[in-house]
Amino acid sequence: MATLANLETYQQRIDTFLKQHLDTLSINDPKLLEAMNYGLLIGGKRMRPFLAYTTAEMLGVELQDVDAIAASLECIHAYSLLHDDLPAMDNDDLRRGQPTCHRKFDEATAILAGDSLQTLAFDILANHPFIDVPANRQVKLIQMLAQASGYQGMCGGQAMDLAATDKCVTLEHLEQIHRLKTGALLESAILMPTLCVADIDPQHITLLKRYSATTGLLYQVHDDIIDITSSEAILGKPAGSDLQANKSTYPALLGLEGAQEKEQELYANSLHALDSLPYNTQNLANFSTFIVQRDH
Amino acid sequence: MATLANLETYQQRIDTFLKQHLDTLSINDPKLLEAMNYGLLIGGKRMRPFLAYTTAEMLGVELQDVDAIAASLECIHAYSLLHDDLPAMDNDDLRRGQPTCHRKFDEATAILAGDSLQTLAFDILANHPFIDVPANRQVKLIQMLAQASGYQGMCGGQAMDLAATDKCVTLEHLEQIHRLKTGALLESAILMPTLCVADIDPQHITLLKRYSATTGLLYQVHDDIIDITSSEAILGKPAGSDLQANKSTYPALLGLEGAQEKEQELYANSLHALDSLPYNTQNLANFSTFIVQRDH
Repeated sequence: MATLANLETYQQRIDTFLKQHLDTLSINDPKLLEAMNYGLLIGGKRMRPFLAYTTAEMLGVELQDVDAIAASLECIHAYSLLHDDLPAMDNDDLRRGQPTCHRKFDEATAILAGDSLQTLAFDILANHPFIDVPANRQVKLIQMLAQASGYQGMCGGQAMDLAATDKCVTLEHLEQIHRLKTGALLESAILMPTLCVADIDPQHITLLKRYSATTGLLYQVHDDIIDITSSEAILGKPAGSDLQANKSTYPALLGLEGAQEKEQELYANSLHALDSLPYNTQNLANFSTFIVQRDH
Repeated sequence: MATLANLETYQQRIDTFLKQHLDTLSINDPKLLEAMNYGLLIGGKRMRPFLAYTTAEMLGVELQDVDAIAASLECIHAYSLLHDDLPAMDNDDLRRGQPTCHRKFDEATAILAGDSLQTLAFDILANHPFIDVPANRQVKLIQMLAQASGYQGMCGGQAMDLAATDKCVTLEHLEQIHRLKTGALLESAILMPTLCVADIDPQHITLLKRYSATTGLLYQVHDDIIDITSSEAILGKPAGSDLQANKSTYPALLGLEGAQEKEQELYANSLHALDSLPYNTQNLANFSTFIVQRDH
Protein backbone atom coordinates (compact mmCIF):
# COMPACT_ATOMS: atom_id res chain seq x y z
CA MET A 1 0.00 0.00 0.00
CA ALA A 2 1.43 3.37 -1.04
CA THR A 3 1.70 5.79 1.84
CA LEU A 4 1.13 9.47 1.43
CA ALA A 5 3.94 11.57 2.83
CA ASN A 6 2.78 14.03 5.49
CA LEU A 7 -0.85 12.92 5.14
CA GLU A 8 -1.51 13.00 8.88
CA THR A 9 0.39 16.24 9.34
CA TYR A 10 -1.70 17.91 6.67
CA GLN A 11 -4.92 16.38 7.99
CA GLN A 12 -4.19 17.73 11.45
CA ARG A 13 -3.15 21.08 10.04
CA ILE A 14 -6.36 21.58 8.05
CA ASP A 15 -8.57 20.21 10.83
CA THR A 16 -7.01 22.64 13.30
CA PHE A 17 -7.38 25.51 10.86
CA LEU A 18 -11.03 24.70 10.12
CA LYS A 19 -11.89 24.13 13.76
CA GLN A 20 -10.25 27.40 14.81
CA HIS A 21 -12.13 29.19 12.06
CA LEU A 22 -15.52 27.75 13.04
CA ASP A 23 -14.79 28.60 16.68
CA THR A 24 -14.50 32.28 15.78
CA LEU A 25 -18.10 32.37 14.54
CA SER A 26 -20.63 33.90 16.90
CA ILE A 27 -23.32 31.52 18.11
CA ASN A 28 -26.32 32.99 16.31
CA ASP A 29 -27.92 29.63 15.74
CA PRO A 30 -26.36 26.79 17.78
CA LYS A 31 -27.98 24.04 15.70
CA LEU A 32 -26.78 25.42 12.38
CA LEU A 33 -23.28 25.95 13.72
CA GLU A 34 -23.25 22.41 15.10
CA ALA A 35 -24.37 21.06 11.73
CA MET A 36 -21.62 23.03 9.98
CA ASN A 37 -19.10 21.56 12.41
CA TYR A 38 -20.57 18.10 11.85
CA GLY A 39 -20.42 18.40 8.08
CA LEU A 40 -16.95 19.87 8.02
CA LEU A 41 -15.09 18.17 10.87
CA ILE A 42 -16.48 14.65 11.32
CA GLY A 43 -14.24 12.32 9.35
CA GLY A 44 -13.19 12.81 5.77
CA LYS A 45 -9.94 11.90 4.07
CA ARG A 46 -8.97 15.53 3.41
CA MET A 47 -7.73 14.55 -0.05
CA ARG A 48 -8.18 18.02 -1.51
CA PRO A 49 -6.26 19.73 1.31
CA PHE A 50 -3.62 17.02 1.01
CA LEU A 51 -3.20 17.72 -2.70
CA ALA A 52 -3.07 21.46 -2.15
CA TYR A 53 -0.41 21.21 0.59
CA THR A 54 1.60 18.62 -1.34
CA THR A 55 1.63 20.66 -4.54
CA ALA A 56 2.41 23.82 -2.59
CA GLU A 57 5.38 22.23 -0.83
CA MET A 58 6.64 20.98 -4.17
CA LEU A 59 6.41 24.53 -5.56
CA GLY A 60 7.88 26.19 -2.45
CA VAL A 61 4.71 28.03 -1.48
CA GLU A 62 4.27 29.28 2.11
CA LEU A 63 2.05 26.77 3.93
CA GLN A 64 0.21 29.59 5.69
CA ASP A 65 -0.99 30.75 2.29
CA VAL A 66 -2.14 27.23 1.42
CA ASP A 67 -4.24 26.98 4.59
CA ALA A 68 -6.92 29.18 3.04
CA ILE A 69 -6.85 27.25 -0.25
CA ALA A 70 -7.10 23.89 1.50
CA ALA A 71 -9.86 25.14 3.79
CA SER A 72 -11.91 26.62 0.97
CA LEU A 73 -11.68 23.37 -1.01
CA GLU A 74 -12.75 21.33 1.99
CA CYS A 75 -15.68 23.67 2.70
CA ILE A 76 -16.91 23.25 -0.87
CA HIS A 77 -16.43 19.49 -0.72
CA ALA A 78 -18.22 19.23 2.63
CA TYR A 79 -21.15 21.35 1.47
CA SER A 80 -21.54 19.24 -1.66
CA LEU A 81 -21.71 16.07 0.45
CA LEU A 82 -24.40 17.55 2.72
CA HIS A 83 -26.53 18.45 -0.28
CA ASP A 84 -25.81 15.32 -2.35
CA ASP A 85 -26.86 13.13 0.58
CA LEU A 86 -30.29 14.80 0.84
CA PRO A 87 -33.42 12.72 0.18
CA ALA A 88 -34.11 14.70 -3.00
CA MET A 89 -30.68 13.75 -4.35
CA ASP A 90 -28.81 10.56 -3.38
CA ASN A 91 -30.92 9.95 -0.24
CA ASP A 92 -28.04 8.52 1.76
CA ASP A 93 -28.40 7.66 5.45
CA LEU A 94 -24.73 7.08 6.13
CA ARG A 95 -21.60 9.03 5.34
CA ARG A 96 -18.21 7.97 6.68
CA GLY A 97 -19.99 5.43 8.87
CA GLN A 98 -22.02 8.19 10.58
CA PRO A 99 -25.58 9.41 10.05
CA THR A 100 -25.72 11.94 7.23
CA CYS A 101 -26.29 15.53 8.28
CA HIS A 102 -30.03 15.55 7.49
CA ARG A 103 -30.46 12.33 9.50
CA LYS A 104 -28.45 13.68 12.45
CA PHE A 105 -30.23 17.05 12.35
CA ASP A 106 -32.99 17.69 9.81
CA GLU A 107 -33.29 18.53 6.13
CA ALA A 108 -33.62 22.27 6.52
CA THR A 109 -30.53 22.38 8.70
CA ALA A 110 -28.54 20.24 6.26
CA ILE A 111 -29.51 22.53 3.39
CA LEU A 112 -28.57 25.66 5.34
CA ALA A 113 -25.36 24.14 6.68
CA GLY A 114 -24.38 23.32 3.10
CA ASP A 115 -25.26 26.82 1.96
CA SER A 116 -23.26 28.34 4.82
CA LEU A 117 -20.25 26.14 4.15
CA GLN A 118 -20.24 27.21 0.52
CA THR A 119 -20.23 30.86 1.59
CA LEU A 120 -17.53 30.09 4.15
CA ALA A 121 -15.26 28.82 1.38
CA PHE A 122 -15.30 32.20 -0.34
CA ASP A 123 -15.25 34.03 2.99
CA ILE A 124 -12.04 32.26 3.99
CA LEU A 125 -10.31 32.93 0.65
CA ALA A 126 -11.32 36.59 0.73
CA ASN A 127 -10.31 37.19 4.36
CA HIS A 128 -7.11 35.18 4.70
CA PRO A 129 -3.96 37.07 5.75
CA PHE A 130 -1.88 35.83 2.81
CA ILE A 131 1.88 36.32 3.10
CA ASP A 132 2.98 36.01 -0.51
CA VAL A 133 -0.26 36.33 -2.48
CA PRO A 134 -1.14 39.85 -3.60
CA ALA A 135 -4.77 40.89 -4.03
CA ASN A 136 -4.84 40.36 -7.80
CA ARG A 137 -3.85 36.71 -7.38
CA GLN A 138 -6.16 36.33 -4.41
CA VAL A 139 -8.95 37.31 -6.83
CA LYS A 140 -7.71 34.65 -9.23
CA LEU A 141 -7.91 32.04 -6.46
CA ILE A 142 -11.54 32.99 -5.94
CA GLN A 143 -12.17 32.84 -9.69
CA MET A 144 -10.73 29.34 -9.84
CA LEU A 145 -12.72 28.07 -6.87
CA ALA A 146 -15.95 29.50 -8.26
CA GLN A 147 -15.29 28.03 -11.70
CA ALA A 148 -14.61 24.59 -10.23
CA SER A 149 -17.57 24.48 -7.88
CA GLY A 150 -20.49 26.11 -9.67
CA TYR A 151 -22.61 25.35 -12.70
CA GLN A 152 -19.55 24.98 -14.89
CA GLY A 153 -17.98 22.60 -12.41
CA MET A 154 -19.16 20.50 -9.51
CA CYS A 155 -22.83 21.58 -9.39
CA GLY A 156 -23.26 21.08 -13.13
CA GLY A 157 -21.62 17.68 -12.83
CA GLN A 158 -23.95 16.63 -10.04
CA ALA A 159 -26.96 17.70 -12.12
CA MET A 160 -25.63 15.75 -15.12
CA ASP A 161 -25.04 12.76 -12.88
CA LEU A 162 -28.62 12.85 -11.60
CA ALA A 163 -29.91 13.28 -15.16
CA ALA A 164 -27.90 10.24 -16.29
CA THR A 165 -29.47 7.96 -13.67
CA ASP A 166 -31.46 5.16 -15.32
CA LYS A 167 -30.07 6.24 -18.69
CA CYS A 168 -27.47 4.75 -20.96
CA VAL A 169 -24.79 7.37 -21.52
CA THR A 170 -21.74 7.38 -23.78
CA LEU A 171 -18.25 7.04 -22.38
CA GLU A 172 -17.58 10.64 -23.43
CA HIS A 173 -20.64 11.85 -21.56
CA LEU A 174 -19.70 9.88 -18.46
CA GLU A 175 -16.23 11.36 -18.59
CA GLN A 176 -17.64 14.87 -18.72
CA ILE A 177 -19.83 14.12 -15.69
CA HIS A 178 -16.85 12.94 -13.70
CA ARG A 179 -14.65 15.77 -14.92
CA LEU A 180 -17.16 18.30 -13.63
CA LYS A 181 -18.60 16.52 -10.60
CA THR A 182 -15.41 15.51 -8.84
CA GLY A 183 -12.56 16.29 -11.22
CA ALA A 184 -12.92 20.06 -11.23
CA LEU A 185 -12.39 20.44 -7.48
CA LEU A 186 -9.50 17.97 -7.35
CA GLU A 187 -7.88 19.84 -10.22
CA SER A 188 -8.24 23.09 -8.32
CA ALA A 189 -6.51 21.55 -5.33
CA ILE A 190 -3.45 21.17 -7.53
CA LEU A 191 -3.80 24.32 -9.62
CA MET A 192 -4.74 26.85 -6.94
CA PRO A 193 -1.28 26.63 -5.33
CA THR A 194 0.28 27.55 -8.69
CA LEU A 195 -1.45 30.93 -8.35
CA CYS A 196 0.66 31.55 -5.25
CA VAL A 197 3.86 31.43 -7.32
CA ALA A 198 4.65 34.76 -8.95
CA ASP A 199 6.85 33.62 -11.82
CA ILE A 200 5.73 30.07 -12.55
CA ASP A 201 6.45 28.73 -16.05
CA PRO A 202 3.14 28.41 -17.98
CA GLN A 203 4.38 25.09 -19.34
CA HIS A 204 4.56 23.74 -15.80
CA ILE A 205 0.96 24.79 -15.24
CA THR A 206 -0.03 22.95 -18.42
CA LEU A 207 1.63 19.78 -17.17
CA LEU A 208 0.08 20.08 -13.72
CA LYS A 209 -3.27 20.63 -15.39
CA ARG A 210 -2.80 17.43 -17.36
CA TYR A 211 -1.75 15.55 -14.23
CA SER A 212 -4.66 16.88 -12.21
CA ALA A 213 -7.26 16.24 -14.92
CA THR A 214 -6.06 12.67 -15.38
CA THR A 215 -5.81 12.05 -11.66
CA GLY A 216 -9.23 13.56 -11.00
CA LEU A 217 -10.75 11.12 -13.45
CA LEU A 218 -8.68 8.28 -12.04
CA TYR A 219 -10.03 9.09 -8.57
CA GLN A 220 -13.62 8.82 -9.78
CA VAL A 221 -13.10 5.68 -11.84
CA HIS A 222 -11.57 4.04 -8.78
CA ASP A 223 -14.44 5.32 -6.63
CA ASP A 224 -16.87 3.65 -9.04
CA ILE A 225 -14.88 0.43 -8.90
CA ILE A 226 -14.65 0.16 -5.10
CA ASP A 227 -18.35 0.87 -4.80
CA ILE A 228 -18.71 -2.59 -6.32
CA THR A 229 -15.66 -4.44 -5.04
CA SER A 230 -15.52 -3.20 -1.44
CA SER A 231 -17.80 -3.85 1.54
CA GLU A 232 -20.03 -1.64 3.68
CA ALA A 233 -17.75 -2.06 6.71
CA ILE A 234 -14.79 -0.70 4.76
CA LEU A 235 -16.65 1.98 2.78
CA GLY A 236 -18.65 3.36 5.71
CA LYS A 237 -21.73 3.24 3.47
CA PRO A 238 -23.60 0.43 1.72
CA ALA A 239 -21.51 -1.17 -1.06
CA GLY A 240 -23.09 -1.27 -4.50
CA SER A 241 -25.15 1.84 -3.73
CA ASP A 242 -24.29 3.39 -7.10
CA LEU A 243 -25.38 0.24 -8.89
CA GLN A 244 -28.56 0.05 -6.86
CA ALA A 245 -29.35 3.67 -7.67
CA ASN A 246 -28.90 2.91 -11.37
CA LYS A 247 -26.17 5.48 -11.62
CA SER A 248 -23.98 5.83 -14.66
CA THR A 249 -20.57 4.51 -13.66
CA TYR A 250 -17.53 3.19 -15.45
CA PRO A 251 -18.19 -0.40 -14.36
CA ALA A 252 -21.83 -0.05 -15.49
CA LEU A 253 -20.66 1.10 -18.91
CA LEU A 254 -17.45 -0.84 -19.48
CA GLY A 255 -17.94 -3.77 -17.13
CA LEU A 256 -15.69 -4.16 -14.10
CA GLU A 257 -12.72 -5.37 -16.15
CA GLY A 258 -13.06 -2.59 -18.69
CA ALA A 259 -13.19 -0.05 -15.89
CA GLN A 260 -10.09 -1.55 -14.34
CA GLU A 261 -8.27 -1.33 -17.70
CA LYS A 262 -9.34 2.30 -18.05
CA GLU A 263 -8.01 2.90 -14.58
CA GLN A 264 -4.60 1.48 -15.42
CA GLU A 265 -4.42 3.65 -18.53
CA LEU A 266 -5.24 6.80 -16.54
CA TYR A 267 -2.77 5.80 -13.87
CA ALA A 268 0.04 5.54 -16.43
CA ASN A 269 -0.95 8.86 -18.01
CA SER A 270 -1.00 10.63 -14.66
CA LEU A 271 2.56 9.49 -13.91
CA HIS A 272 3.66 10.43 -17.41
CA ALA A 273 2.39 14.00 -16.98
CA LEU A 274 4.76 14.43 -14.04
CA ASP A 275 7.85 13.29 -15.97
CA SER A 276 8.85 16.64 -17.46
CA LEU A 277 8.28 18.72 -14.36
CA PRO A 278 11.51 20.07 -12.84
CA TYR A 279 10.25 19.56 -9.29
CA ASN A 280 10.34 16.65 -6.90
CA THR A 281 7.08 15.07 -8.02
CA GLN A 282 7.42 11.91 -5.92
CA ASN A 283 4.58 12.78 -3.56
CA LEU A 284 2.17 13.47 -6.42
CA ALA A 285 3.19 10.21 -8.09
CA ASN A 286 2.54 8.45 -4.79
CA PHE A 287 -0.88 10.01 -4.73
CA SER A 288 -1.77 8.38 -8.05
CA THR A 289 -0.57 5.06 -6.72
CA PHE A 290 -2.49 5.59 -3.50
CA ILE A 291 -5.69 6.20 -5.46
CA VAL A 292 -5.56 2.94 -7.39
CA GLN A 293 -4.70 0.98 -4.23
CA ARG A 294 -7.23 2.42 -1.80
CA ASP A 295 -10.23 0.34 -0.76
CA HIS A 296 -12.44 3.11 0.69
CA MET B 1 -47.45 56.38 -3.91
CA ALA B 2 -43.74 57.26 -3.92
CA THR B 3 -42.05 56.45 -7.19
CA LEU B 4 -38.52 55.21 -7.37
CA ALA B 5 -36.38 57.20 -9.78
CA ASN B 6 -34.84 55.06 -12.51
CA LEU B 7 -36.39 51.88 -11.11
CA GLU B 8 -37.30 50.52 -14.53
CA THR B 9 -33.99 51.58 -16.04
CA TYR B 10 -32.08 49.73 -13.33
CA GLN B 11 -34.39 46.72 -13.54
CA GLN B 12 -33.79 46.47 -17.25
CA ARG B 13 -30.08 47.04 -16.81
CA ILE B 14 -29.64 44.25 -14.25
CA ASP B 15 -31.96 41.88 -16.13
CA THR B 16 -29.94 42.39 -19.31
CA PHE B 17 -26.68 41.92 -17.45
CA LEU B 18 -27.86 38.73 -15.73
CA LYS B 19 -29.38 37.31 -18.90
CA GLN B 20 -26.25 38.00 -20.91
CA HIS B 21 -24.20 36.37 -18.20
CA LEU B 22 -26.33 33.22 -18.07
CA ASP B 23 -26.26 33.05 -21.87
CA THR B 24 -22.47 32.73 -21.81
CA LEU B 25 -22.67 29.50 -19.79
CA SER B 26 -22.17 26.30 -21.75
CA ILE B 27 -25.15 23.98 -21.80
CA ASN B 28 -23.79 21.15 -19.66
CA ASP B 29 -27.12 20.40 -18.10
CA PRO B 30 -30.06 22.10 -19.84
CA LYS B 31 -32.48 21.52 -16.96
CA LEU B 32 -30.21 23.03 -14.32
CA LEU B 33 -29.45 26.01 -16.54
CA GLU B 34 -33.17 26.50 -17.17
CA ALA B 35 -33.84 26.35 -13.44
CA MET B 36 -31.11 28.93 -12.80
CA ASN B 37 -32.71 31.18 -15.43
CA TYR B 38 -36.11 30.58 -13.88
CA GLY B 39 -34.91 31.40 -10.38
CA LEU B 40 -32.94 34.44 -11.43
CA LEU B 41 -34.94 36.01 -14.25
CA ILE B 42 -38.64 35.34 -13.67
CA GLY B 43 -40.08 38.32 -11.86
CA GLY B 44 -38.62 39.94 -8.78
CA LYS B 45 -38.56 43.57 -7.77
CA ARG B 46 -34.78 43.90 -8.05
CA MET B 47 -34.71 45.96 -4.87
CA ARG B 48 -31.11 45.10 -4.03
CA PRO B 49 -29.81 46.04 -7.50
CA PHE B 50 -31.94 49.19 -7.32
CA LEU B 51 -30.33 50.17 -4.00
CA ALA B 52 -26.85 49.42 -5.29
CA TYR B 53 -27.31 51.50 -8.48
CA THR B 54 -29.03 54.32 -6.60
CA THR B 55 -26.31 54.56 -3.96
CA ALA B 56 -23.62 54.29 -6.61
CA GLU B 57 -25.09 57.12 -8.68
CA MET B 58 -25.31 59.23 -5.53
CA LEU B 59 -21.60 58.55 -4.86
CA GLY B 60 -20.53 59.03 -8.48
CA VAL B 61 -19.48 55.40 -9.03
CA GLU B 62 -19.19 54.02 -12.58
CA LEU B 63 -22.38 52.05 -13.30
CA GLN B 64 -20.37 49.36 -15.09
CA ASP B 65 -18.65 48.63 -11.80
CA VAL B 66 -22.00 48.43 -10.02
CA ASP B 67 -23.31 45.84 -12.49
CA ALA B 68 -21.27 43.12 -10.82
CA ILE B 69 -22.33 44.23 -7.34
CA ALA B 70 -26.00 44.32 -8.29
CA ALA B 71 -25.77 40.97 -10.07
CA SER B 72 -24.02 39.25 -7.19
CA LEU B 73 -26.62 40.53 -4.72
CA GLU B 74 -29.45 39.34 -6.94
CA CYS B 75 -27.85 35.91 -7.39
CA ILE B 76 -27.61 35.50 -3.60
CA HIS B 77 -31.17 36.72 -3.14
CA ALA B 78 -32.49 34.40 -5.86
CA TYR B 79 -30.63 31.38 -4.47
CA SER B 80 -32.01 32.06 -1.00
CA LEU B 81 -35.57 32.13 -2.35
CA LEU B 82 -35.11 28.80 -4.18
CA HIS B 83 -33.87 27.15 -0.98
CA ASP B 84 -36.27 28.89 1.42
CA ASP B 85 -39.22 27.75 -0.70
CA LEU B 86 -38.23 24.07 -0.46
CA PRO B 87 -40.57 21.61 1.30
CA ALA B 88 -38.02 21.16 4.11
CA MET B 89 -38.09 24.92 4.76
CA ASP B 90 -41.08 27.17 4.05
CA ASN B 91 -42.72 24.67 1.66
CA ASP B 92 -44.13 27.34 -0.66
CA ASP B 93 -45.85 26.45 -3.93
CA LEU B 94 -46.00 29.97 -5.32
CA ARG B 95 -43.44 32.72 -5.67
CA ARG B 96 -44.25 35.91 -7.51
CA GLY B 97 -47.48 34.31 -8.72
CA GLN B 98 -45.57 31.48 -10.42
CA PRO B 99 -44.83 27.92 -9.30
CA THR B 100 -41.75 27.81 -7.06
CA CYS B 101 -38.65 26.31 -8.63
CA HIS B 102 -39.02 22.88 -7.02
CA ARG B 103 -42.65 22.74 -8.20
CA LYS B 104 -41.73 23.80 -11.73
CA PHE B 105 -38.75 21.42 -11.89
CA ASP B 106 -37.99 19.15 -8.95
CA GLU B 107 -36.38 19.41 -5.53
CA ALA B 108 -32.93 18.24 -6.55
CA THR B 109 -32.85 20.76 -9.37
CA ALA B 110 -34.01 23.58 -7.10
CA ILE B 111 -31.30 22.74 -4.56
CA LEU B 112 -28.60 22.61 -7.26
CA ALA B 113 -29.87 25.75 -8.99
CA GLY B 114 -29.66 27.55 -5.66
CA ASP B 115 -26.17 26.22 -5.04
CA SER B 116 -25.07 27.27 -8.53
CA LEU B 117 -26.55 30.74 -8.17
CA GLN B 118 -24.67 31.24 -4.92
CA THR B 119 -21.42 30.29 -6.65
CA LEU B 120 -22.33 32.54 -9.57
CA ALA B 121 -22.53 35.52 -7.22
CA PHE B 122 -18.89 35.12 -6.23
CA ASP B 123 -17.92 34.15 -9.76
CA ILE B 124 -19.34 37.40 -11.12
CA LEU B 125 -17.65 39.56 -8.48
CA ALA B 126 -14.32 37.83 -9.03
CA ASN B 127 -14.42 37.98 -12.83
CA HIS B 128 -15.93 41.39 -13.53
CA PRO B 129 -13.87 43.82 -15.62
CA PHE B 130 -14.03 46.65 -13.07
CA ILE B 131 -13.04 50.10 -14.32
CA ASP B 132 -12.33 51.91 -11.07
CA VAL B 133 -12.07 49.12 -8.51
CA PRO B 134 -8.55 47.77 -7.92
CA ALA B 135 -8.04 44.16 -6.84
CA ASN B 136 -7.67 44.93 -3.13
CA ARG B 137 -11.10 46.55 -3.07
CA GLN B 138 -12.54 43.82 -5.29
CA VAL B 139 -11.48 41.43 -2.52
CA LYS B 140 -13.27 43.64 0.01
CA LEU B 141 -16.46 43.43 -2.08
CA ILE B 142 -16.23 39.65 -1.92
CA GLN B 143 -15.62 39.80 1.83
CA MET B 144 -18.69 41.92 2.32
CA LEU B 145 -20.93 39.71 0.20
CA ALA B 146 -19.73 36.59 2.01
CA GLN B 147 -20.24 38.18 5.40
CA ALA B 148 -23.77 39.26 4.51
CA SER B 149 -24.90 35.99 2.99
CA GLY B 150 -23.37 33.19 5.06
CA TYR B 151 -23.73 31.91 8.60
CA GLN B 152 -23.09 35.34 10.04
CA GLY B 153 -25.69 36.86 7.76
CA MET B 154 -28.59 35.60 5.69
CA CYS B 155 -28.15 31.83 6.22
CA GLY B 156 -27.81 32.24 9.97
CA GLY B 157 -30.89 34.46 9.96
CA GLN B 158 -32.92 31.89 8.07
CA ALA B 159 -31.89 29.19 10.54
CA MET B 160 -32.84 31.46 13.46
CA ASP B 161 -36.15 32.20 11.77
CA LEU B 162 -36.93 28.49 11.38
CA ALA B 163 -35.89 27.87 14.98
CA ALA B 164 -38.22 30.63 16.17
CA THR B 165 -41.27 29.10 14.47
CA ASP B 166 -43.89 28.09 17.06
CA LYS B 167 -41.86 29.87 19.73
CA CYS B 168 -42.34 33.10 21.59
CA VAL B 169 -39.27 35.24 20.99
CA THR B 170 -38.24 38.60 22.42
CA LEU B 171 -38.33 41.74 20.34
CA GLU B 172 -34.53 41.85 20.48
CA HIS B 173 -34.29 38.31 19.17
CA LEU B 174 -36.76 39.01 16.38
CA GLU B 175 -34.77 42.06 15.40
CA GLN B 176 -31.59 40.01 15.17
CA ILE B 177 -33.36 37.47 12.97
CA HIS B 178 -34.49 40.18 10.59
CA ARG B 179 -31.14 41.96 10.68
CA LEU B 180 -29.41 38.79 9.56
CA LYS B 181 -32.05 37.16 7.36
CA THR B 182 -32.94 40.10 5.13
CA GLY B 183 -31.20 43.13 6.58
CA ALA B 184 -27.62 42.02 5.95
CA LEU B 185 -28.05 41.71 2.18
CA LEU B 186 -30.00 44.96 1.86
CA GLU B 187 -27.29 46.70 3.84
CA SER B 188 -24.67 45.32 1.48
CA ALA B 189 -26.57 46.71 -1.47
CA ILE B 190 -25.93 50.16 -0.02
CA LEU B 191 -22.47 49.58 1.45
CA MET B 192 -20.82 47.64 -1.38
CA PRO B 193 -20.86 50.68 -3.69
CA THR B 194 -18.94 52.65 -1.01
CA LEU B 195 -16.05 50.22 -1.59
CA CYS B 196 -15.86 51.53 -5.16
CA VAL B 197 -14.98 55.03 -3.91
CA ALA B 198 -11.29 55.42 -3.18
CA ASP B 199 -11.36 58.31 -0.74
CA ILE B 200 -14.75 58.11 0.89
CA ASP B 201 -15.10 59.76 4.31
CA PRO B 202 -15.49 57.02 7.00
CA GLN B 203 -18.16 59.16 8.64
CA HIS B 204 -20.26 58.91 5.49
CA ILE B 205 -19.95 55.14 5.59
CA THR B 206 -21.13 55.18 9.21
CA LEU B 207 -24.21 57.18 8.25
CA LEU B 208 -24.97 54.97 5.26
CA LYS B 209 -24.57 51.97 7.54
CA ARG B 210 -27.11 53.47 9.92
CA TYR B 211 -29.48 54.25 7.05
CA SER B 212 -29.14 50.77 5.56
CA ALA B 213 -29.53 48.94 8.87
CA THR B 214 -32.65 50.92 9.72
CA THR B 215 -34.08 50.56 6.23
CA GLY B 216 -33.33 46.83 6.12
CA LEU B 217 -35.33 46.36 9.29
CA LEU B 218 -38.06 48.66 7.99
CA TYR B 219 -38.31 46.52 4.86
CA GLN B 220 -38.84 43.36 6.91
CA VAL B 221 -41.31 44.91 9.34
CA HIS B 222 -43.35 46.13 6.39
CA ASP B 223 -43.10 42.70 4.78
CA ASP B 224 -44.51 41.16 7.95
CA ILE B 225 -47.31 43.71 7.97
CA ILE B 226 -48.43 43.27 4.38
CA ASP B 227 -48.41 39.50 4.79
CA ILE B 228 -51.44 40.17 6.99
CA THR B 229 -53.01 43.23 5.42
CA SER B 230 -52.65 42.41 1.72
CA SER B 231 -54.35 39.78 -0.47
CA GLU B 232 -53.09 36.78 -2.41
CA ALA B 233 -53.85 38.45 -5.74
CA ILE B 234 -51.61 41.38 -4.85
CA LEU B 235 -48.86 39.43 -3.04
CA GLY B 236 -48.56 36.66 -5.65
CA LYS B 237 -48.62 34.18 -2.74
CA PRO B 238 -51.20 33.30 -0.10
CA ALA B 239 -51.76 36.15 2.36
CA GLY B 240 -51.28 35.33 6.05
CA SER B 241 -48.81 32.57 5.20
CA ASP B 242 -46.38 33.75 7.91
CA LEU B 243 -49.19 33.69 10.47
CA GLN B 244 -50.33 30.28 9.31
CA ALA B 245 -46.80 28.94 9.57
CA ASN B 246 -46.59 30.26 13.15
CA LYS B 247 -43.64 32.40 12.23
CA SER B 248 -42.23 35.00 14.56
CA THR B 249 -43.18 38.35 13.05
CA TYR B 250 -43.55 41.89 14.32
CA PRO B 251 -47.36 41.78 14.13
CA ALA B 252 -47.34 38.45 15.97
CA LEU B 253 -45.23 40.00 18.74
CA LEU B 254 -46.45 43.59 18.90
CA GLY B 255 -49.89 43.29 17.37
CA LEU B 256 -50.64 44.92 14.03
CA GLU B 257 -50.84 48.40 15.51
CA GLY B 258 -47.64 48.01 17.47
CA ALA B 259 -45.87 46.82 14.35
CA GLN B 260 -47.19 49.80 12.43
CA GLU B 261 -45.88 52.15 15.13
CA LYS B 262 -42.50 50.46 15.04
CA GLU B 263 -42.53 50.91 11.29
CA GLN B 264 -43.15 54.65 11.57
CA GLU B 265 -40.31 54.98 14.07
CA LEU B 266 -37.90 53.14 11.78
CA TYR B 267 -39.09 55.22 8.82
CA ALA B 268 -38.30 58.46 10.66
CA ASN B 269 -34.90 57.14 11.76
CA SER B 270 -33.98 56.08 8.24
CA LEU B 271 -34.70 59.57 6.90
CA HIS B 272 -32.80 61.11 9.79
CA ALA B 273 -29.67 59.09 9.00
CA LEU B 274 -29.57 60.69 5.55
CA ASP B 275 -29.72 64.27 6.87
CA SER B 276 -26.01 64.85 7.44
CA LEU B 277 -24.81 63.24 4.21
CA PRO B 278 -23.37 65.78 1.74
CA TYR B 279 -24.89 63.97 -1.25
CA ASN B 280 -28.23 64.20 -2.98
CA THR B 281 -30.00 61.60 -0.85
CA GLN B 282 -33.46 62.18 -2.30
CA ASN B 283 -33.62 58.81 -4.06
CA LEU B 284 -32.68 56.91 -0.91
CA ALA B 285 -35.25 58.89 1.06
CA ASN B 286 -37.81 57.99 -1.59
CA PHE B 287 -36.88 54.36 -1.15
CA SER B 288 -37.79 54.49 2.55
CA THR B 289 -41.11 56.09 1.65
CA PHE B 290 -41.66 53.51 -1.07
CA ILE B 291 -41.13 50.68 1.42
CA VAL B 292 -43.77 51.87 3.85
CA GLN B 293 -46.26 52.48 1.03
CA ARG B 294 -45.85 49.27 -0.97
CA ASP B 295 -48.58 46.64 -0.85
CA HIS B 296 -46.65 43.66 -2.25
